[in-house]
Amino acid sequence: MATLESFSCPLPKLYYDTVQLAHGSGGKLSAELIEAIFLPCFGNDTLNQLEDQATFAVPKGRMAFSTDTFVVNPIFFSGGNIGDLAVNGTVNDVAMSGATPKFLSIGFVLEEGLPIEELRQIVESIRYSAQQAGVNIVTGDTKVVEKGSCDKVFINTSGIGFIPPEINFGIAQIRPGDKIILSGSIADHGMAILTKRKGLSFQSGIKSDTAALNGLIATMMESEGTIHALRDPTRGGVATTLNEFAGQSGLGIRLQQETIPVNDAVRGACEILGIDPLYVANEGKLIAAVSEEHAELVLEAMRKHPLGTQAAIIGEVTNDHPKKVVMENAYGTERIIDMPIGEQLPRIC
Amino acid sequence: MATLESFSCPLPKLYYDTVQLAHGSGGKLSAELIEAIFLPCFGNDTLNQLEDQATFAVPKGRMAFSTDTFVVNPIFFSGGNIGDLAVNGTVNDVAMSGATPKFLSIGFVLEEGLPIEELRQIVESIRYSAQQAGVNIVTGDTKVVEKGSCDKVFINTSGIGFIPPEINFGIAQIRPGDKIILSGSIADHGMAILTKRKGLSFQSGIKSDTAALNGLIATMMESEGTIHALRDPTRGGVATTLNEFAGQSGLGIRLQQETIPVNDAVRGACEILGIDPLYVANEGKLIAAVSEEHAELVLEAMRKHPLGTQAAIIGEVTNDHPKKVVMENAYGTERIIDMPIGEQLPRIC
Repeated sequence: MATLESFSCPLPKLYYDTVQLAHGSGGKLSAELIEAIFLPCFGNDTLNQLEDQATFAVPKGRMAFSTDTFVVNPIFFSGGNIGDLAVNGTVNDVAMSGATPKFLSIGFVLEEGLPIEELRQIVESIRYSAQQAGVNIVTGDTKVVEKGSCDKVFINTSGIGFIPPEINFGIAQIRPGDKIILSGSIADHGMAILTKRKGLSFQSGIKSDTAALNGLIATMMESEGTIHALRDPTRGGVATTLNEFAGQSGLGIRLQQETIPVNDAVRGACEILGIDPLYVANEGKLIAAVSEEHAELVLEAMRKHPLGTQAAIIGEVTNDHPKKVVMENAYGTERIIDMPIGEQLPRIC
Repeated sequence: MATLESFSCPLPKLYYDTVQLAHGSGGKLSAELIEAIFLPCFGNDTLNQLEDQATFAVPKGRMAFSTDTFVVNPIFFSGGNIGDLAVNGTVNDVAMSGATPKFLSIGFVLEEGLPIEELRQIVESIRYSAQQAGVNIVTGDTKVVEKGSCDKVFINTSGIGFIPPEINFGIAQIRPGDKIILSGSIADHGMAILTKRKGLSFQSGIKSDTAALNGLIATMMESEGTIHALRDPTRGGVATTLNEFAGQSGLGIRLQQETIPVNDAVRGACEILGIDPLYVANEGKLIAAVSEEHAELVLEAMRKHPLGTQAAIIGEVTNDHPKKVVMENAYGTERIIDMPIGEQLPRIC
């Protein structure tokens, strides 16, 4: 696998070391930013047209389209930064429909005074993660706001992918008896952000799981097991995603607590900080509802993929307790896993 | 034409009067915001699925895809607000390719403490302007950042449209002899923002020209005149767009100053404030490069459309002075219209 360094893009010296309001003016300094940073890093035939919109050929069929704005604080954290997060987050939202993600837009909001070097690092991560995910950045926009009017940098990505004809994933497809498969350990991303904020990153060894999941999903689809729904448990964590499954399908979900993988360092940090890992964000994990008879088939395929080695069946869909998620622990005690009301960890993505 | 009021969407009472961090958590308060404001206003079959991505059928052919983040300050101004600006801006960027805009995504970044009533007004404008432009909002995202971490509200919109088979607009199609047509008066939007900031809105009578131009473009295309390139002169104004035409085509552009429509109030305000209207943003105007023999045909069609009554041929493309825009005034004096370097009016969109 190529490393970030091998994709490093050249950076001609810019006139300013920090982002100026005029970098967002649409004038000469905007052009300098585009020519010196964005085009060398992202350049492709479509983007290079420098039109106000990308145009490209599309096949007849069904398309997936998703958007997300990333406001994570801090912008650099253990395992990634706001740039790869912005690519992976939208690639994953597109891919959860069964679509093959193809095209991304990027919209930057930059705070006046942001060091160009930090912008360069973010852009390089965007380039690298887009390359890894097999998507092209085909259109973009940059706005600059006065110092104090935003927090360093916000990034919106919108993504487009094409859905193979036979695929129809969605919460409406979930059936009683379906197995719930989780692709790996939970809460890594949220706890990486939180420990960084608290200055504990080095000691903790906790790293964000930020990753593009389209490769893992392709592997799952190749297994030919019947997948009913896929979703990535980001904000609000596994608890929120499973409550969406239950609430929108009208069915119940029963979890086995001891089957849910949590890395030791994350479990320890959650205990110390009094945080339930079920509610903490992930950025490189997925939850699948898979037909009972194909669950082992899909699970086996997932475990052979680098992003699915810890995949596990963590529960099943049931007609009991409609719209509720219930978790049973190792002692047979049950508790309801509700939607979160408040905000446990703001700005984790 | 339906009025904004007739599209007014119901607003159930929310638990809070102002935006809370938890409204962006993905949990119960996020769901409340979606169910009480976004779905009643934007709801359509695709959005109502509440999946993390929109899915829809697409025809085989060419597609246009564009993105823009709107950070305008103030968020309410004479003639519009950040909501309709966000819809019209992206609809226009998509439409400039000749595409029929169809689908929009919306990504909100909200500042903690924003009054829900202001959000509701913005959302209602989004609904109304999307309806007017004939586009559906099919997917979205809401982030909330702590008070002080952004300025009230930023909105990203990304848009998708489909390009008729025979259409191929682009700067690469511009030819010497092409006429430059401007669809109406310049600098209205930027001066509406500036006068609002300076507390002069009421006296000035200046209103933003924010409007979706896809209807006007459809009219132009129906005239069957050969259009080579279309662009909307937003940030940096007409001067910047024409410099992009010249710079990217390698050709020169010659303007006749007295043919460029400027409303009296705008001209007066520009004079008082020492601002050149050629560099001021428009949000409901387009510039077309049209083949010489069809320019009158296209112009005539434009003038019959409500958004093109003031349309005028303002200049032509030439082999002289490659990559430069030159303007001749009523006395025959010429000056070069350069790209702006600095930022004259930050955050006008």
